Formats: sequence, structure tokens, C-alpha cells
Amino acid sequence: MTDANLKKELDYIFKPRSVAVIGASTKRGAIGRELLRNIIDYEFNGKVFPINPKAEYIQSMKAYPSITDVPDDVDMAVVIVPKEHVLQVVEECGQKGVKGLVVISAGFREVGGEGVERENKLVEIIQKYGMRLIGPNCMGILTGIPEVRLHASFGPADPLPGSTAFMSQSGALGIAIFNLTKQLNIGFSYFASVGNKADISGNDLMEYWEDDEHTQVIALYLESFGEPRVFTGLAKRISKKKPVIVVKSGRTEAGSRAASSHTGALAAPDVAIEALLKQTGVIRATTIEEMLDVILALTKCPIPNGNRVAILTNGGGPAIMATDACVSFGLKMAQISVETWDKLAAIVPAEASLVNPIDMIASATADTYSKCLSLLLADDNVDMVIVGFTPPVMVKPMDIALAITEVKRRYSKPVVGFFMAEETFFDEFPKMVPDCPPIYRFPEAAAHVCAEMYRYHVAKVRPEGEVRTFEVDKDAVQKILDERIKAGGGYLEQVDAFKVLKAYGFPVCKAQVVRELDELHDAGEEVGYPLVLKMAGRQIIHKSDIGGVVLDIQDEKELVWALVEMKRKLAEAGLEDKVDKFLIQEMSQPGKEVILGMSLDPKFGPLLLVGTGGKYVEVLKDVELGVTPLTDIDAKEMVQSIRGYALLKGVRGEPPVCIDVLIECLQRLAQLVTDFHEIQEMDINPMILSPSKEDCRVVDVRIRV
Amino acid sequence: MTDANLKKELDYIFKPRSVAVIGASTKRGAIGRELLRNIIDYEFNGKVFPINPKAEYIQSMKAYPSITDVPDDVDMAVVIVPKEHVLQVVEECGQKGVKGLVVISAGFREVGGEGVERENKLVEIIQKYGMRLIGPNCMGILTGIPEVRLHASFGPADPLPGSTAFMSQSGALGIAIFNLTKQLNIGFSYFASVGNKADISGNDLMEYWEDDEHTQVIALYLESFGEPRVFTGLAKRISKKKPVIVVKSGRTEAGSRAASSHTGALAAPDVAIEALLKQTGVIRATTIEEMLDVILALTKCPIPNGNRVAILTNGGGPAIMATDACVSFGLKMAQISVETWDKLAAIVPAEASLVNPIDMIASATADTYSKCLSLLLADDNVDMVIVGFTPPVMVKPMDIALAITEVKRRYSKPVVGFFMAEETFFDEFPKMVPDCPPIYRFPEAAAHVCAEMYRYHVAKVRPEGEVRTFEVDKDAVQKILDERIKAGGGYLEQVDAFKVLKAYGFPVCKAQVVRELDELHDAGEEVGYPLVLKMAGRQIIHKSDIGGVVLDIQDEKELVWALVEMKRKLAEAGLEDKVDKFLIQEMSQPGKEVILGMSLDPKFGPLLLVGTGGKYVEVLKDVELGVTPLTDIDAKEMVQSIRGYALLKGVRGEPPVCIDVLIECLQRLAQLVTDFHEIQEMDINPMILSPSKEDCRVVDVRIRV
Repeated sequence: MTDANLKKELDYIFKPRSVAVIGASTKRGAIGRELLRNIIDYEFNGKVFPINPKAEYIQSMKAYPSITDVPDDVDMAVVIVPKEHVLQVVEECGQKGVKGLVVISAGFREVGGEGVERENKLVEIIQKYGMRLIGPNCMGILTGIPEVRLHASFGPADPLPGSTAFMSQSGALGIAIFNLTKQLNIGFSYFASVGNKADISGNDLMEYWEDDEHTQVIALYLESFGEPRVFTGLAKRISKKKPVIVVKSGRTEAGSRAASSHTGALAAPDVAIEALLKQTGVIRATTIEEMLDVILALTKCPIPNGNRVAILTNGGGPAIMATDACVSFGLKMAQISVETWDKLAAIVPAEASLVNPIDMIASATADTYSKCLSLLLADDNVDMVIVGFTPPVMVKPMDIALAITEVKRRYSKPVVGFFMAEETFFDEFPKMVPDCPPIYRFPEAAAHVCAEMYRYHVAKVRPEGEVRTFEVDKDAVQKILDERIKAGGGYLEQVDAFKVLKAYGFPVCKAQVVRELDELHDAGEEVGYPLVLKMAGRQIIHKSDIGGVVLDIQDEKELVWALVEMKRKLAEAGLEDKVDKFLIQEMSQPGKEVILGMSLDPKFGPLLLVGTGGKYVEVLKDVELGVTPLTDIDAKEMVQSIRGYALLKGVRGEPPVCIDVLIECLQRLAQLVTDFHEIQEMDINPMILSPSKEDCRVVDVRIRV
Repeated sequence: MTDANLKKELDYIFKPRSVAVIGASTKRGAIGRELLRNIIDYEFNGKVFPINPKAEYIQSMKAYPSITDVPDDVDMAVVIVPKEHVLQVVEECGQKGVKGLVVISAGFREVGGEGVERENKLVEIIQKYGMRLIGPNCMGILTGIPEVRLHASFGPADPLPGSTAFMSQSGALGIAIFNLTKQLNIGFSYFASVGNKADISGNDLMEYWEDDEHTQVIALYLESFGEPRVFTGLAKRISKKKPVIVVKSGRTEAGSRAASSHTGALAAPDVAIEALLKQTGVIRATTIEEMLDVILALTKCPIPNGNRVAILTNGGGPAIMATDACVSFGLKMAQISVETWDKLAAIVPAEASLVNPIDMIASATADTYSKCLSLLLADDNVDMVIVGFTPPVMVKPMDIALAITEVKRRYSKPVVGFFMAEETFFDEFPKMVPDCPPIYRFPEAAAHVCAEMYRYHVAKVRPEGEVRTFEVDKDAVQKILDERIKAGGGYLEQVDAFKVLKAYGFPVCKAQVVRELDELHDAGEEVGYPLVLKMAGRQIIHKSDIGGVVLDIQDEKELVWALVEMKRKLAEAGLEDKVDKFLIQEMSQPGKEVILGMSLDPKFGPLLLVGTGGKYVEVLKDVELGVTPLTDIDAKEMVQSIRGYALLKGVRGEPPVCIDVLIECLQRLAQLVTDFHEIQEMDINPMILSPSKEDCRVVDVRIRV
């Protein structure tokens, strides 16, 4: 639930009773003038005070030289003065008792150097007075709800009110969003351009909008994550209540370089973000266009209960294209019931095609559309309907749109349209019929939003799962890690790494460390034949590349010989000083190689990895990532997402291997790296999964602290 | 070059001096009336004769009861009469000496049954009189070139003239295309809705447009391929002259089921089409939206010479999004030269970001855009420029658009815009400035068209390559195949399959067939130890699943034992009658397993396959397909496209395997299956590639005839 304090504080910004515009200008075209005009033109329900030491009035309103001269209380101030004056006017705001600030002015952290210092001072001042701040370096805010109607931004004049709360980390994009949403008839409950996020972050806004009754959909344009772990928790919670949709730019390396230079925030690697968003139930859009399409659908449609789509069109080509798109987005083509089929057949001409996609052919009228759509929506085998229309000579798009609007009002399943019609239709129709279904220009957009609505349904009903806590020997691990850190950190000795895993309940191979030939007899007896001999130095990373692994040693004679050979190879490679220890390990049962791993991200915390293991991990790249906290459901879904999952389940007559062991080990790994943030990096590769649970073994592991 | 006869014949349809509209109607809204109106409103440069037995005049024009009553010569007739009358009026057209027909009427092959018969008769009649035919069951045609201006379709009234020749297999889609191209300001040299393609096909039209001076881009919307092999040859040739862009719908299985029921044409599998289009240099678009975006770019821009893109914007967010999109479409971010950098720095404020993407920040004016764009276009490190604009308060999109148009006129590199502006800009600008650059609404569209233009450049300069012909023993293969076919076809005996490969120069393992224990001594000596024993029956497909392969047999004792064991296993499985032959094969050197294969498609001919081989082929699905004729370049590119290519090149210190052997074998395979269409299916799996050319071996093969 939204924190009550946060709500009160942000209400001062988004629902103020009075607003001061500090830096309001007399010059047309200046931001200080356009922003004031936006407030007035949008008919803010409250008082506005322009502040400008040089003007007596601005846009017919009395201007005050300083905020301290304003005779009334001021809840919120918008600051548009040159950067040099920001700290002073903000100080005055504090003295005046202003509760919230929106600082448009730029010249702070984003320019580096003295800008960083200026931002730090700004934060000090607002903390001193208990004010909250949006910005600096932002485009402003908007509240669309009728009792408020505050447009305090320098974006285009007349954004539509509605039920979408939008946060943008880019000002330029905010302007674009205002233009684009108007074309699509998407309206805002709130909009905020957050700029440098010196105080109020995207996370704060998400929480503020969590229980807001005016907000149906929360949309975020992000260039960086400030607090990804806070985001994870919040997004998981809020996604269950209302859809949260995110565009995270800087997806590619070059893009994130641009993102870094732009906002001064270190962009986190995209894989981590992808993993995080997947676990939170957030809808990720790749582009703004996709995001707006999905927002339109989410605000116009009920959430579907399944993924079975019926397609209804008046032309074969568009029907095929819609089908292609649905299938490629993972939707299912609904199997229409026989009863529905019979009833449809009575309505459409014989030339029509009644195998979903349903092509009523070009003679279909508004009445045909209306009757067929009703039948499809009433069919229990149909979860949603895509209605396509290509205007032939005598049928007008508007008539069809009105007909399907009337039908969809009577059903609680999503109806999504694509009309390949003239632009004028799109200009007029949504304005005329506010509760119309979402209608797109192309079949692919319609299919895409259906797929995303379904995915949101899946995320919403997905069980939360639980973060399992296994009984482990924490002290043993702490001791090993402490010793290594005292010795300067780096990779653990192989034998210690195995001990760490053992303490956390991983099934590790039986093993013994040896240095010299005379230790082989006892060690061999202890481990048992057949066995494996490996180099065990901390330095050697890819042992098999330099012949540091000998498999399937049958007896002591072979073992002695293998060690002699290995030492000779080391000497030849000039590595005898680096490797003075060797590991004797039981031979594992045949099975499938998997990898488990972790890499500690400074921002995201431990990134967990599971995938197809073995020598070619880097080439195959068949891995799935996850973040902590990791539930049992998360772990299971990660394992099921790797391409090699089919191999684990058994193909070509092979028995399945014990996948549960892998899922459990992934959770044990999550517990280990959550308990010990000293661990920087881990690779368990390979772990060998066998058909029998008892035979699964971790064969090799590296741990860096 | 366009066939002269074809040109003459199609000129009668697309550039007639006189047109009869048979079935012209007095009823407003009827197709026969709307089509006539379209001809007149579009101001056709020629004579039009409405034909209607019941009307004296239609739309102020004298009507004739029958075409034979028309006093003048008639080059082309559009037929819109009910299906029952089509054959009769077409017969009359023949008598009259009409040269070309466009039959709009439906009720032919697409409805099955008597429709098929009607279509066959229709073809008979036109052949009798030497007429050519577009349709039946189509939406009509359009010629946009000024000397003709013939709009003989029932689509929306006023399609723009221009330089795109468009063929649509769907009428409904044609209507959509007319609406959409108008919004985007794309104009037509020709448009044809081909319907059932009873006579004139997409291939004919492509050839007709090949050397047409009015046509800059050829665009095809296909639901099925009539003659894919003719298409391949034509498309390869024409792609070198002008871009050919294709949307093939029915990509997914469900989509192609819909395609089949729609046009009655058996849709070919999408993988084959993908392979075919790749080898022809045709641009494939997934959606109509993508296709139109690319057409706009191709008609407005020169083809780029490389893939280094500079991005120029006035906002960080859009810059990042454009960068993400460029990189994910495979473009390179240009490294601006130091000189350009210095000059840019002198123009933009200090807050601007000059590491490509270049963000001039919101203060950028038309002049800033103009100067910076000039500098980027003049930089030798830049192949094309994407210009992004998000309108801040005081800068108008129109001014920026005019400025960049003026600059791009002076350079021969592509300039592509994305303006996140209000809709009115898009309505007005392209009409005002006909030679404007293509400007999109979103950064992703701009990046996408740049990527496709670059891909077209690559296809255009790609060497043709040659289809190699190896010296082979054709007779030997013919004999083996004939014998098998005489025996009822099916799989070849393993030993025969090996002989086939040997005759075509594949490096096959040394092998001997044995049946009984007493043959083992000689066979073992002949092949040499170590060796492999395999079941060799025609029935056994996945030998390793039932223990039918024993590897690494060291001597005769082991070999005897292995055969005894194998026979016992067969007896246990009740298979002893089916397998009476065994293969003794030399043990191959260690290496990487690859697969080569072929499957004969009734329409596409032999589909060749190469990929990562071994036991898990079906699970890994790492294969690439190709069609014949296969050039050396095609073969090389196929091999380089498989994911496992990196493994073949050697990773983790392993030496590369001899990839040339694989490329050559792929070409030998192409020759084999081109020589022998008896071969239905082939799997060479695994072939083992070793670092040394001499050690590469085909280990197993199956051939079905």
C-alpha cells in the first residue's frame, strides 16, 4: 500500500491548492512564459502566482518579486530560473513554507563538476526544510484529473486527461509522448518528467500511483535504474493491482553508452534488467510505439482470461496477416465451437471462410460484423477477438466501428480492432466514441497488444512462490571466506570452494587434495576407483585447455602415472610453481552438464545464472538470468526457459535427468550469495545431472571473493 | 531483360488506348459503377466504353449493349459481370479483338468445384484468341504514369502517382495499400491486384517492371508462390537493377492454413521461402507497415555504401532509442572524425553530447541542424545520417524539415528522419516538399529502413558466385537408384548410400558389410583397427537409440564379441529378421559433427540443409536452408550462418576444423540432388570435420528415393 506520508508529500506537488512559477517570464516563447500559459490554459483548479523580480504583471496576472512576497500560502513552486539562482530561490521557498518543488532548470549533476556540487546543495536545502523535489533538469509535471488539472510543463499545450500515469526520465521524450498520446487518444491521470531524480524517484512515483483511484495503468520510460532492488519489490506488489509497463532504453551497449553520457547515471547491463522485469510481472515494451499501443489496450479492454484469439475480418489477406502475427506472438487460434460455427454459417455468404480466422468477405455490413462478433464473444472457446476491417466501396469504417463498440459493451472479453482505413477515421472516431475498443492501423499491432494483455494476465495470476531457506552451515562458509579475504581475496582454493558448496547442501563429488606421489595411495582408497585427477591451483581457470584433467583412472598404477605426466606438462609450460596441488575426485555418473553461476552487480546485487554447461558455455550462450530474492517459482521458470531444457527432459529415448536437483541447487545458490555478499563471482560448471537424484554431482566450481 | 513479347502484351493492359468496362452499372455503390467513376475521375488518357445491355448511358457516357457493338478498337476490357456471364463476354472480347483482360468477377478456382472448371474454360478462351488476363477474382489495376493514368480498380479513389510498382495477391489488402500509401505519400507507377493468377502471374509482372523507366521499386504482397524457381531466377536478376521488396504472408502454420483456404493455393513452407529470398537478394518485410516504410526510404534516398550511421538529435532520450534500434538492426555507430568533432563543437553548446549519437540539446535551431547535418554528411566515416527531432516550445518541425531537405540535396548519402511531432506535420510536410527525406514517427522505423537499405546495398554488390560442377560418377549413382526404385523405392541400403556419396566425391569412411561371424576376420583386416560396428538395415533409422553402434573396437576378439552382443540385442528386441547386415567402418578422427541434408519440395525443388550435427539435431535446430541453384557464395554463406560456426572455427584453444570441406560437400550435395530428382530425402549425419582436410569423414548417411 502507498505509504501515507509519501502520499501526503506528493499530493502537495500533484494536487496543490496554490502554485508559484518562479522565473515566470514576459517573453513569449521563453519556457517561463510557456509553462505559465500551460497552467492557465489547462484551467488549473487553484491559485497561481508568477514570480519575477522585474515584472509587475505577466499574462494579465500580478507578478511578485520573490516567493516571500506572496501574500497566500504556496503549496508548490515550479523553478525555471538560471542555474546560478536556483539555490537561492529554493532557500526562499523553504522559508516561505512551500511543500513541494519542481525544478525545471538544468546545470546540475548531468553536466558534472560544479553541477554535481550544486545538486548536492539543492538536496541539502530541501532536506533542511522537509520539502520534496521533482527534477532538477526536467520538463515538468501534469495532473489530468478533473478536480486538479495542473499542466506545469513546457510540453505541447493540451495533453488529454485520462487514466494513465506516466513517468519519463527524458524531457525530450516527454514532449514526444504528449504529441503521440494525443494522436492515439490516450489520456493522463498524471505525468512527471523526473530529470536527475535528485529526490523523488520513479520508485516513489510508482508507489504514489499504486492505490490512486484515477490511475489504471502505470507507464515508465527509464534510462537507468536508481534502486533496482526497491523497484523489484514495489513492481512485484503493484503489478498484482494494476499493469506497470516499462520502456528501458539503452538496451544495447552503444545505446547504454549514450544513456550514460546523457543522464550521468551508470546504465546497468540489459540482461540484468530483463531478468528483473521478468520476475516482477512488469510488462516490458521495446519501443515507445509498442508501449503506447499496449497502454491504449489496457485502458480500453478488460484483461483476458486466456490466450485463445478469434479473428474476424472482411478480407483474406488481412486475416492471414493477423493470424501470422498472433501465432508469432505466442497466442493460440481459438477453436470455434460447432454451435457458433453453425450460427455464423447462417449469417455469412457461402464464400466466407469459417475456420478461424473468419473472413466474412467484402460484402460484410455493420450488421454482419455485429452478429458475428456477438457469437464469437459468447463462445466459451474464445478469450478475445481481433476485428479487422478493410473498407470496400459501400461500407464506412465509422459504421463498423460503432457496431463493434455496441457489441463489446455487452461482453467482458477484450475486443481489439485493426482498420486499414483512411487517416480521417482515426482522427474522428475515438473522439466521437470515448468507450470505443482500441483500433490500430495494422494487424500486427492488434495481435501484439492481445499478447501483452494475456501476458499481464499470466503475471497477475502467477503464484508468488516462496523464497526457500535451507538448513546450512553458515559458520563454515564464513570462516573460509574470511581467511581468503584476509589473504587478499581472489579465487578460493578449489577444495575450499567445494567445502562452501557442501556446507550449503550441494551434492559435490567426493574429493581429496594431494601434492605428492606418496599421498596417492590413501587418497585413491578414500575416493574410490574409477576417479579423476585435476590440477587444483587458484590460478588455473580453464583446466581442460592445458591438459589439467585426466578422467576415468581405473587403479593406483594409472593414477600414479597420470600425476607424473601432469607434473611434467606443468613443468613444460613453466607452471610448476603456480600449481602445487591436485584434486582426486570420484568419477561422476554419465548425465547432462549444466552450469550454475552468479555475478555480483554493484547495483542489482547478485545476478544468478543457470544454463547448458560444459566446455562451450560461452559459445552456446544458452543461459537464463535471475535476480534475488528468488522464489521457488522463479527458479523453476528459469530452468524451464533454457533452450537445453528439452535435452534435460530426455530426447531420443533417453531417460529424463533429475531436474528438481538443479532447481533446488539454484535456490541454494541464491541463499548462499544472499548470505555472503563477499562472494563476487561463482561458476559451478559443470554440474552433472543424472536420471537418479543420488547420482547428480557438482564436478567443478570456482568462487571469487 | 524484359521479354519483348511480354512487354507488348502487358502494355495493352497497363497502357491501353481504349478500355471497355463490361458490367458498368447505373447503380451508385455497385462495383461496376465505382470502377468506371475511378477511371473517369483519374482522367485516363484514352477512350472508355461502358458496356451494359440494359442502359443507354452511364455517368453521362454512351453505353453499348455488348462489346461487339463498340464502333472503335478496344485494347483492354475490364469484366465485372456475374460469374455466369463471364465466359460469354470474354468470348465476345476475343471476337472483338481485345488484347488484354482484367476480370474482377469472383466465383472461380477460389470457390472450388465448378469454379475450377469455369476458370479452366476461361483460360482456354483467352488462349484461343491470344489474349492476356489479370484475375479473375481481383480488385483491378492502376497505372500512375502521367501519359496513361488508368485507375481501373474498385479501391479508394485517388492513389498517388509515383515510382513504386506494386503487386498484391489480396484484393482487401489492395484497398488497405491505397489508404496507407496516401498517408505516407508513396505513389505508384503501377498497381495490380492479381487475384487467382489464372494467366498473368507475379513473375510476369516483375519481368514487365524490370526495365520500366517509371518504376524505381518493385513491391510484392504474396500469399503463395506459383513458380518459385522462375521467381528465383528473375528476382536474382532484377534485384541487381532495382530493389524488389516482398511481404509473404502465411508465415506461420496457422497463417498458411488461412492462406490455403483463401486462395486455394498450397502455401509453401516458410523456411523454404526464407532461404529462397535470402539467396535472391530480395528484401523481405515481415509486415505491410515495414514494407511501406522501406519503400518510402528506397524511393527517397540513394542506396548507402556502408552501414556506419550517425544520429543527430535535439534530445537524449530519442538519441538513445535510435542508437538501441540501430545496433539491434545490425548497423554500426559511425566514429566521427576528429575534424568533424571539432567543427561540431564550435556550433553546439557545451552541454551537447558529441559522441555519436549527437545530441545538440533542445536549443538546436534549424540553422544548428543544417550545419551539423552538413558536417556529418561530409565526414568520410559516415555512410548515412538519422535525424531525430522532438519539438520544444520555440522550434517548429517544418523549419527543421526544410533545413535538412536543403542539406540532403547537396549530398549523395541517405538522410532519414524521425520527428516525434504532431500529426499535422506529417499531413502537410511531404505534400509541400516532394523531394523531402523520408521522415518517420519513431526512431525504430528510421533505423529499420537504414538497415534494409544497407542490406540491399550488400545484396546488390554481392558477387553472383558460380554453380560449381564437380567431376562425378553419375552412372554409378543412376544404377543404384534405379535398382532401389525397381524394388519399390524407400531407403537405400546403407552400403549403397555410401557408394552414392563416394561417386560424388564425398569423403566417406572405409567400410565393409558383413552378415556372419566368419566374415569378420577379412573385413576387419580390410578396414583396419580401431573400427566401428553398426547395424546396417534399411529399417533402422536411429541406430544409437537401440544400441546398434559400437565404437572403438580394438581387435578381432572385441569385434567378434561386439557382433555376438548386437545380434543378441536384436533378437531380444525381436528385430533379428529386419536386420541381417552389419557395417564395419573405420573409426573417424576426433572432430566436430555436422549435418548435411536435403528434402525435395514439390514446388521449391530440393531444399538443402546444413547445420550442427549429431544426435541432438532435432533439439538444437541449428540449421540453415538453401535452394538450388546453389552458388559457391551461397554455400559459404549458409555454412557461416549456423550458430555452431564459431565452434567450427575453434574456441577455447582448439584448432579450427576444415570448414572448406563442408562448403565443398554442400555444393557436391547440390549437384547430386540436382542431377537426381529421384532422391526424395537425404541425411548425412554426422559428418565429422577435423582440423586436417584428409581426416574429415562422412560417418553416416540415409537416402530415400
